[in-house]
Formats: sequence, structure tokens, C-alpha cells
Amino acid sequence: MSTNVARTGDGWWTEHDGRLTRITTDATTTADLLADRSPIEKAAGTPDPDGPRLQDVSLLSPVTVPARVVAQMVNYRSHAHDSGFDPRSVLPTFFRKASGSVCGPNDAIRCPDHVGFLDYEIELGLVIGRRIDVGTVVTDDDLTDVVAGIAVTNDVSARDIQLTRTQFYEAKSYPTFTPVGPYLTLLDGDELATLERLRLTLSVNGEIRQDSTVADMIVKPARALTLLARFQALDAGDLLLTGTPGGTALKAPGPILEKIGALLPPAVKWKAFFKRQADNPHYLKDGDVIAATITDPLTGIDLGRQTNIVRGPARRTAL
Amino acid sequence: MSTNVARTGDGWWTEHDGRLTRITTDATTTADLLADRSPIEKAAGTPDPDGPRLQDVSLLSPVTVPARVVAQMVNYRSHAHDSGFDPRSVLPTFFRKASGSVCGPNDAIRCPDHVGFLDYEIELGLVIGRRIDVGTVVTDDDLTDVVAGIAVTNDVSARDIQLTRTQFYEAKSYPTFTPVGPYLTLLDGDELATLERLRLTLSVNGEIRQDSTVADMIVKPARALTLLARFQALDAGDLLLTGTPGGTALKAPGPILEKIGALLPPAVKWKAFFKRQADNPHYLKDGDVIAATITDPLTGIDLGRQTNIVRGPARRTAL
Repeated sequence: MSTNVARTGDGWWTEHDGRLTRITTDATTTADLLADRSPIEKAAGTPDPDGPRLQDVSLLSPVTVPARVVAQMVNYRSHAHDSGFDPRSVLPTFFRKASGSVCGPNDAIRCPDHVGFLDYEIELGLVIGRRIDVGTVVTDDDLTDVVAGIAVTNDVSARDIQLTRTQFYEAKSYPTFTPVGPYLTLLDGDELATLERLRLTLSVNGEIRQDSTVADMIVKPARALTLLARFQALDAGDLLLTGTPGGTALKAPGPILEKIGALLPPAVKWKAFFKRQADNPHYLKDGDVIAATITDPLTGIDLGRQTNIVRGPARRTAL
Repeated sequence: MSTNVARTGDGWWTEHDGRLTRITTDATTTADLLADRSPIEKAAGTPDPDGPRLQDVSLLSPVTVPARVVAQMVNYRSHAHDSGFDPRSVLPTFFRKASGSVCGPNDAIRCPDHVGFLDYEIELGLVIGRRIDVGTVVTDDDLTDVVAGIAVTNDVSARDIQLTRTQFYEAKSYPTFTPVGPYLTLLDGDELATLERLRLTLSVNGEIRQDSTVADMIVKPARALTLLARFQALDAGDLLLTGTPGGTALKAPGPILEKIGALLPPAVKWKAFFKRQADNPHYLKDGDVIAATITDPLTGIDLGRQTNIVRGPARRTAL
């Protein structure tokens, strides 16, 4: 059965029916916590009926930093369509986010002054449980050993920076651009086999924008970790964001416009592109509230609800 | 006056006329070493005439890992031309390399089996001397305080991975893809003002391929660090690679071919591109020896000579 682990400024907790039970541990990092699971099991096995209520505490990211934060580019068929890729020909691709972008599950997302097109991307986060050396092949059978747990994450993206720079690193690395949690959900072995049923839902001001299951994912976790380990070692506590489903504010131009754009100098192309995007009401603006959940009603796995208010101008800047 | 610091399995050293003088320190990381400069100054001030000769020791990277390794995309006018960018319109862009790619200045560069187009990129590496918080503005006057020293680096690149994935992270992060050293060269304040005169030279099997000065650089160090600090904090011991000048094996197709390529599906475009590249003899192959130096004869600043043999197939694989 899955166990939801939460973190506050005061330590680590398991969650049961909306109440928290303290985990007796000296761990200060996620890696430390994962090194000895017995205190977690003990807390999960004896929930405190008088423990603090979830809504009365301030939650931190259950993934501590520094940690490697790696993300998969275009990894849902529906998002490939949104962003102008043919899902049959997209090659598995990774990029890095600064771990300084990680924030708590209910923190404000701060949009820098120079960013005009702020977007959301709900993603299933995999939290690594042990060292993975370069060259490691991860199979579905290894997954329980390699992946300690999963979490709701949001790969917040400054689209005007992302698309004009081509490299995603800056656009996705500003502080607060990776809310994580509320929980690190530790899974049993057989539960990792049912990840495909997990349903990812993201709303903005109550309006559903993203709503898909992991079944739409292109490169699944075991293969993704094998491909990542071709070049990047991982350690316990590292975080892999596995891509977002369709429904982001960003909608790529159709294939005809795309081909016309390819003939233009880049500055002209992007100016025209973001001029069209300026009328798109789905980009985030000051005061917007994003809510994100990942659940599987059938198994009862519930990664909890992440709620973030957007702070900052998100005005339409000149490029 | 500049001081060359070297590292072996046995500790830290200053270099003078090809001989090494031990630095009396317990530092195990570059950050530790930089935290107290007095033992370095002491060793540099009293060179050991009987110290080990440089050619008799096995040098490690003077930048220890883990550390943040960040690189600037297209940052020399001559390289912009090679890679098909208009240097007037290229936007300052950063990407991340895994710090697991860092290796010693004379280590073999190991080309993975699946990589067919291996390329070199000599770069001036800046080693950070103190914490830089997000939002910091770095001026030329701050540079001495912020940059502890400089080093020869090679941003080794798997071009077939890099161009087909669009994100550079994997292509530039395989183990041994970032040789660093031989030295971490600590500069005096006024020496940082003369960086533009530094001459970067890279040869393969004795044939000069890259030969430029820092004067050709587009975004200079103070502005680069300011732009990087828009989103990424840095700490002492972190490494910024500042881009490579012209002369890489990669030569982008001309503007006409580029526009035709843009109309093709990506898989077809890249197949055609690498078919043409297959005849290019400049990509690295098993047994090639790369030598890289950065010097300024006028000031006597000499970052030393990095020599790496290439190991691995670098055969022309199907994409």
C-alpha cells in the first residue's frame, strides 16, 4: 500500500486521512530519509489521531535540494500534438532544471519581470531511491528498487525564453518554477506496475486545462531511466520529471505556418509567433491559481493536491 | 601575477617552470581550496626546486565534482558562422553539462558506441570564487571577486545526438566529455581585465583546427554571469564554459540548404545532413590526439596544455 510522506520546517511526516504523524528521524535530506525506511513504516503503521491537520501546516517540497532535477522533453502524445511534434518521430530527449527552481506544493510561483508568456505543465515526478551508475539498464522489474516514490510536479515554463533560446534550461529554472508535492508517495512494487492508470489533472482558476492518464506517455519510466543513464548518473533523492500531457497554454502553429516560419529569420519568426500568442488567454497572469492532482481511484493511490498562486507581471513584453 | 594550481590524487600543487610545489592544505574540493588562499600563496611564493616534474605526475581536473557545470551556446562570432547562426541575432543562451563529464586534462575521451559524430570545442572555463545569488548583477569591477580563476576546457560534443535531440544536455554530458586543466589559473584583478588577449588553440594530431582570441567572444564574462544569475545561483568551485571559437568539425549547411531542410520532416532532414557530414574528415576517431592551450604571451599568463587521446569507435552509425 502506498505511503504519503510530507515535509515541514519541523521535520518529516506520514499522512493519513488528512492528518500528519511525525516520523522519528534525524534525516535532513530526502536521500537520508530514504536510506532507512523503518521510521517511515512505523509512523505509517500507527497514525496519530491527534496529529496536525494538513491544512494547518506549511508544507515544503518533499524532495530536498541540492538534487539533480532532470526532465523529459515531449513525452506525451497529446503534448507532442500541442507543441508541433510528430509523436512517432520524436527522439527521447532530456534537459536539466536548476534545483533552485524547486519550491513547496503551495508556494507562490513568481514570474520574473522580463517573462511575458508563463505556462504550466503538470508532470509525474519520479524520486530516485538509490545510486544509478552510467551504463545501468533499468527494467520494469528493477523499478521498485530504483524508484523510491512519485510526486506531483509542475514544470513551469517561460515560453518566450524557452522558444527563442532553443535550450530549455533557463526558461524552466527560475526560482519557484518547480513546485513539488504535497507528498512523496512511496509505492509498493506492484503499484509501480499500475502507473499507467494514474490520472493527471491541472486546473487554472477552477477551469480544467490538463486531464490525462499516464497511458498517453511515450517513453515509460524504465526505458527513460535506461536512456538517461547512458550519460547521467543519479543518486537517491534525485528527481526525474516525466513530461506533460496536452493542454498547456502553448499551442504550436499548424504545419503550414511552421514551414512558412522556418523560412523567416528567427527574430522575425518569433516576433510573429508571440504576436499571435498575445491573444491567447491561457498563459498565466498575476493572481491565477493553479491546482494539480495525480490520483488513481481504483488503487486509492493519491499524490495529493498542489495549489500555487501566480505572482508577477506576466505582461506581454517585447521580445 | 597569475598562479597555476594543479591537482593530483595526492593533493594540490602550484606549478612553476614545469615543477610542482605542494600546497599545505586539507582541502578536498575546489571550493575548500579557494576558501583560504594563504597556503596557495605560500607555495607559489616559495617554489620547491626539487618538486615533482609535471610530466611525471597524473593530473586530475583542478575543478572537483560535484559542481555546477554550465556552458554558453554560440558565444564566438566565428563559431556562430560555423553553426549557421547570425551572430547579430543570437540570444545569450545557457545549457547544463553533467558534472560527471568532467575528467583530467590528459585523460582519454571515451566515445560511446552509439555516437557517430564526435567533435571538439576548446573553451575558456571560468571557475567561480564565491556564492552568486539569483538576481546578482556582476560588473567588470566585480569580476575579481566573483571569478577565482580560469582553466582550459573542452566541451566535447556528440553532434548526432545534439542536433537530433535539440537539447544539448545529453550530447555534451557523457563521461570524459569535459576535460579540465591542467591548471586552475588564479588571476590578479588587473589580469582579468586583459582576458580578451588570451589565445585559444586546439589541434588534432598536430593540425591546428581552432585558433582565436577571446576578443571574438560575443557575451563577455561579467554580462554572462549577470544573465546566468537571472535564474541560476552559483557557488565557489562551479564552472562556466564560455563558448568555443570557429573551427569545429561541425559546419552548418549554408542558408539555402538550411531553408530547404526546414521544409523536410526532421528525420529526413537529419538523415540528409549527416549523410553529407559522413564525408567530413574532421570528426574525431579512435586514436586521434587533441591538444589544447590557452595563453597570452604578452602577460605571460599560460593556462597550460591539455592533451587527450580519443578512444572508441566514432564510427558513422545510422541515426
